[in-house]
Amino acid sequence: MINKLIEKIKATNAPIVVGLDPMLSYVPEHVQKKAFAEYGETLEGAAEAIWQFNKAIVDATYDLIPAVKPQVAMYEQFGVPGMAAYEKTVSYCQEKGLVVIGDVKRGDIGSTSEAYAVGHLGHVQVGSKSYAGFHEDFATVNPYLGSDGVKPFIKVCKEEKKGLFILVKTSNPSSGEFQDRLIDGRPLYEWVGEQVAVWGEEHMGDSYSYIGAVVGATYPKMGKVLRSIMPKAYILVPGYGAQGGQGKDLVHFFNEDGLGAIVNSSRGIIAAYKQEKYASFGAENFADASRQAVVDMVTDISTALEK
Amino acid sequence: MINKLIEKIKATNAPIVVGLDPMLSYVPEHVQKKAFAEYGETLEGAAEAIWQFNKAIVDATYDLIPAVKPQVAMYEQFGVPGMAAYEKTVSYCQEKGLVVIGDVKRGDIGSTSEAYAVGHLGHVQVGSKSYAGFHEDFATVNPYLGSDGVKPFIKVCKEEKKGLFILVKTSNPSSGEFQDRLIDGRPLYEWVGEQVAVWGEEHMGDSYSYIGAVVGATYPKMGKVLRSIMPKAYILVPGYGAQGGQGKDLVHFFNEDGLGAIVNSSRGIIAAYKQEKYASFGAENFADASRQAVVDMVTDISTALEK
Repeated sequence: MINKLIEKIKATNAPIVVGLDPMLSYVPEHVQKKAFAEYGETLEGAAEAIWQFNKAIVDATYDLIPAVKPQVAMYEQFGVPGMAAYEKTVSYCQEKGLVVIGDVKRGDIGSTSEAYAVGHLGHVQVGSKSYAGFHEDFATVNPYLGSDGVKPFIKVCKEEKKGLFILVKTSNPSSGEFQDRLIDGRPLYEWVGEQVAVWGEEHMGDSYSYIGAVVGATYPKMGKVLRSIMPKAYILVPGYGAQGGQGKDLVHFFNEDGLGAIVNSSRGIIAAYKQEKYASFGAENFADASRQAVVDMVTDISTALEK
Repeated sequence: MINKLIEKIKATNAPIVVGLDPMLSYVPEHVQKKAFAEYGETLEGAAEAIWQFNKAIVDATYDLIPAVKPQVAMYEQFGVPGMAAYEKTVSYCQEKGLVVIGDVKRGDIGSTSEAYAVGHLGHVQVGSKSYAGFHEDFATVNPYLGSDGVKPFIKVCKEEKKGLFILVKTSNPSSGEFQDRLIDGRPLYEWVGEQVAVWGEEHMGDSYSYIGAVVGATYPKMGKVLRSIMPKAYILVPGYGAQGGQGKDLVHFFNEDGLGAIVNSSRGIIAAYKQEKYASFGAENFADASRQAVVDMVTDISTALEK
């Protein structure tokens, strides 16, 4: 799957991923109204609204981008109907040829991580049959529990040709509270990054590993260090746009080959129509605003990389 | 909710929690067959099988125990139907008067943690109505992202009178890889424990905080240290039984008042009928075997605490 992701990045010339994190407040009123008319103001109604919102954005952007990253929390908040909308979104994006990164940040003791890995990246056995529950192409994983929390994911990735992005340095303001603490003179995130590199070397695609890392756009200096610690790891970079990251901050997340990083924007793209910059599209044309925001984001990053 | 949990622990005299982690391989064949006859060998069939399995165990044990801890991964592996079985299990246990600890180990950047908190412990707004998606009483939370990943959970707990158990030192063999690394001479898990104590002091129930911690039974010495670092935090202790922890290892997780810890057993109770010790019950009477395993576990822990 890392090979497919890289092919798609080259084909679109867009090292970006659209974060499908549909808060209900991002969904234009006309989309909400239509969903509520059919299902009522229920969890099913909310799930329908976010699904229709996602579908319109995917339809308007899929030819420009290699991948999407649905954040499962935004679906999980709507209970079981929300999880159904998540699965439907994953399926639809895959039908459109997109690589789907499930931003699930799971991680537990071995036997439990195995169940998560099976549910999100693999197949579960039911009697004589097997099923893929949520079937994302990549998943994000939390490393706090150490190797035996991560290895079951790696095992399933190997069997299913899927991939991981392991949290190394997250984009949020308080990520440093534990991640930046010094251990033998080096911050925890570097130790986690080294471990990602070790896991990654054993699980290579053609030019990059299918074990990648998450490093926030909001910490460009740390990104530069982590880039050198994990040369073969693809870096998923959240924090662009709404969280404050800009194209010029991102150059050092990439390798000399122009590859090695994929930058996520969520709000900045899916709720673009709410920004002054794209207000002329109007709420009716929210998906067109998202398309324009994708074009602008690709230009911003390409320009920075060319310099 | 911490007050209710403590009341129930006192009333049952059982500082234990039954881990409802239904691997399909634990579910006796007759239960699976019946579910598959109705729904086929499908995800719905698997979800029905684990739900019926859970229901029988809850019916056989609810009068002896204060709480259950369903591990969401075991449901998530069966996709959307699995999540529906999870929600049904949470509801049923609450109807039976049990406190439900959702072992979800979620944690993300602020806005995303907020969605998780809303989905698992709170209410989500849909138009003019609000809904509780999975409505557990407590949730487990991963601290790797720092304060702004945890605070949205605390906020919802305050509003909803719910509680948290934050991962401090997990029970698995490789938990030490990052958690035991020394920072200014002290292991990371102690720093996390101190932070839990700080959060906890600001969010007190009557005698204990509603911000608790997870510390594995497999690390009794560390449990003793963490007990003193977090005197007002309830400690959720996984790793008893199948993972190797025994009653005698657990004494120092408790305070002088005989409170302060709640010990989880999953496989050891729900799959008791598979152990030689309880084999005489037979697979048909798996729930009776679970009841006996609960009685034995309570005796083991009580005896150790009395000494």
